[in-house]
Amino acid sequence: MLPQWIIERKRDGQILADDELEFLIGGYTRGEIPDYQMAAFAMAVFFRGMTPDETAALTRSMLRSGDTVDTSSIRMPKIDKHSTGGVGDKISLILAPLVACCGVAVPMVCGRGLGITGGTVDKLEAIPGYRTQLSEDEFVQVVARCGCSIIGPTERLAPADRKLYALRDVTGTVPSIPLIVASIMSKKLAEGIDGLVLDVKCGRGAFMRTLPEARALAEALIRVGRNMGKRTAALITAMDQPLGRTAGNALEVQEAIETLRGQGPADVRTLTLALGAEMLRLTGVVTDQNQAAIMLAKKLESGEAFAKFRDMVGLQGGETAAVDDPARLPAARYQRPYPAAADGIVQDVDAEKVGRLCVTLGAGRVRATDTVDPAAGVSALVPVGQRVGRGDPLMMLHANSANRLQEAQALAAETFRIGPAPAAPPPLVIASL
Amino acid sequence: MLPQWIIERKRDGQILADDELEFLIGGYTRGEIPDYQMAAFAMAVFFRGMTPDETAALTRSMLRSGDTVDTSSIRMPKIDKHSTGGVGDKISLILAPLVACCGVAVPMVCGRGLGITGGTVDKLEAIPGYRTQLSEDEFVQVVARCGCSIIGPTERLAPADRKLYALRDVTGTVPSIPLIVASIMSKKLAEGIDGLVLDVKCGRGAFMRTLPEARALAEALIRVGRNMGKRTAALITAMDQPLGRTAGNALEVQEAIETLRGQGPADVRTLTLALGAEMLRLTGVVTDQNQAAIMLAKKLESGEAFAKFRDMVGLQGGETAAVDDPARLPAARYQRPYPAAADGIVQDVDAEKVGRLCVTLGAGRVRATDTVDPAAGVSALVPVGQRVGRGDPLMMLHANSANRLQEAQALAAETFRIGPAPAAPPPLVIASL
Repeated sequence: MLPQWIIERKRDGQILADDELEFLIGGYTRGEIPDYQMAAFAMAVFFRGMTPDETAALTRSMLRSGDTVDTSSIRMPKIDKHSTGGVGDKISLILAPLVACCGVAVPMVCGRGLGITGGTVDKLEAIPGYRTQLSEDEFVQVVARCGCSIIGPTERLAPADRKLYALRDVTGTVPSIPLIVASIMSKKLAEGIDGLVLDVKCGRGAFMRTLPEARALAEALIRVGRNMGKRTAALITAMDQPLGRTAGNALEVQEAIETLRGQGPADVRTLTLALGAEMLRLTGVVTDQNQAAIMLAKKLESGEAFAKFRDMVGLQGGETAAVDDPARLPAARYQRPYPAAADGIVQDVDAEKVGRLCVTLGAGRVRATDTVDPAAGVSALVPVGQRVGRGDPLMMLHANSANRLQEAQALAAETFRIGPAPAAPPPLVIASL
Repeated sequence: MLPQWIIERKRDGQILADDELEFLIGGYTRGEIPDYQMAAFAMAVFFRGMTPDETAALTRSMLRSGDTVDTSSIRMPKIDKHSTGGVGDKISLILAPLVACCGVAVPMVCGRGLGITGGTVDKLEAIPGYRTQLSEDEFVQVVARCGCSIIGPTERLAPADRKLYALRDVTGTVPSIPLIVASIMSKKLAEGIDGLVLDVKCGRGAFMRTLPEARALAEALIRVGRNMGKRTAALITAMDQPLGRTAGNALEVQEAIETLRGQGPADVRTLTLALGAEMLRLTGVVTDQNQAAIMLAKKLESGEAFAKFRDMVGLQGGETAAVDDPARLPAARYQRPYPAAADGIVQDVDAEKVGRLCVTLGAGRVRATDTVDPAAGVSALVPVGQRVGRGDPLMMLHANSANRLQEAQALAAETFRIGPAPAAPPPLVIASL
């Protein structure tokens, strides 16, 4: 078997066998198959797609390229949530400790941000001392002690994905459903979970711009999850406006803490409860979604979820003082309100533009090797439907560089649309699969 | 400009600008753009194709990646022929000296064989001492002195193609018309020629299996040639049966010499005259094709063409004694007739199978880095239409290894089809463009 034969078969629209995919992914992980053959293969997959069986086999090979966390010592259902990425999406920070309050374990391995999409690992690293790099043993111990742990990618979990994702990023082969599915699912299934809820974002601030695209991705993800014996469900949720009123790492941690304290913006709370209810339903802890949402809401009001988050941060080396008093989180040198140019009602807040604004301010990455500024970002974003007067702040810009601030101010004009008509944000949960 | 943006634009079916292609090819040649980005790009081109303008711009960038031979000191029209490759195609060996007898110069840079396709450079290297690696100055001097020179690829002519072809070979991106056209034309136009005749092979022993495919390639080649100000023409010629009665390096040199002496198989002679007439027509030496064919036939009968070939071999360091007496060419240790299994008329000789047989015997390469055995191959191939009796030889197998010989004998059975009906080979020249 030669790699080019497999590339040619995919190029010509043939269906690859499990052992061909294993040969390719195993060889690539071990460095026996070079990047250039993998890049040509990925582009052929972009054009030809993959059958559900091929996608499952690719996922299995990528999963097998590394370890699966041994969570057998944790005698609770183990479940996770994965979001396909958006702007202002801090849900994982709230959801993991919240669901862990209900007798299920949440071992969560997250990623870093790239482009307009934020990353949970970047957000957590805004908490001084928080260690996102734990060994597998440490990870299991944190989950055993407090019911949840959120860490970053490790060298040993799905190393094929690490390598392949970096390659896809620079070869125009990111937007391919089978490759996205195998990337997500190989990483998530390496966590040693029983079930997974997918939050497939849809809209201009997301990877999938339209509902048919989002639905195709959600269905492909569910198919692979179930094929591999995991309870799997998905919500398709709106990502036209940013989620919550902040975007940027420390700013989002602060908003997550507010929500964990039973406050926070309505959309953040609503989506957290919806995803949490799905997670509890999948694990069999509850049978009724409404009952689940009520249970979860109580855990927010009671302070249990907040305490759980604080425990997790402490166990992972983070300063709990910064959790208790978010004023201790990194703050930007420049904080400037951005004023409305006219009177009226906010018709639209463009999530993609907010994402670009965050990258400009230093909160995000253009390339995977860039570093992020934990303090940068936007806060106090005025939501759709709110009436504003000329000169009222539409958001607060946070930056540590005057240049970045200036550049962002130039971009900011296109972010909001203000008009005379009443407006309301569209529903957050678009579909449940 | 980032390479991935260009890859993405091609992936999405957009038309690339000249400067984007120059950025890509120039950067790749200088080693600034890595193989993996070029491989993804090549696969995107495989799926999306290129417009004629894009193909011309790609060719120009590949040509500009290296030198163009300065042939200005040669005060004659300069013309070349390129074959897209087949089995038993030794035409260049005869054609270059033959056309050089008619007051035009033939500076010819050829390639090595790969797979079932033979290479002119490999054939010439079967002549003891023949140097296929000349400097550009030496190359021009040989052309100046005897009117023709045949050399192999150099580091300085179209280095982008050298690098890109090696990459395409292992990434499933060989069969793409724009990439084939840019590869051929960048190398050929680097020879400093005024015109080019293309022999586009069509059939199961060729890269293009069907007439529409061959025609598409021929048209794309002509378009780029003319776009770049060169007189360009093409013949589409049959490659279902091998050309001539030999395949293999020294064996083909011997058959070329026979043809140069005014003998040789009818098909080899016919195709040589047809291509030669096109070359003379393009240069304006003759206006009438029949007149050209008569002139060329005379140069064969008179021994002038043979003498020219002998001169060229001598000027390039080859043993002219081996040209005078081909028995001095390398000969294989094992030479075995392959007998007919039945009485009848030869209905078919499968060029692809003969090509595979040659590779098995050691005359060809599986990978670009393999070495070839100059003595290996097949000779005395019985042509279509000939009556044979059971046990009569259908061909002679030449090998230096008993194992290879045995392996080839096992393959040989499928090469010939013998039946009761009269049969004649189809016409050699299918179309003239």
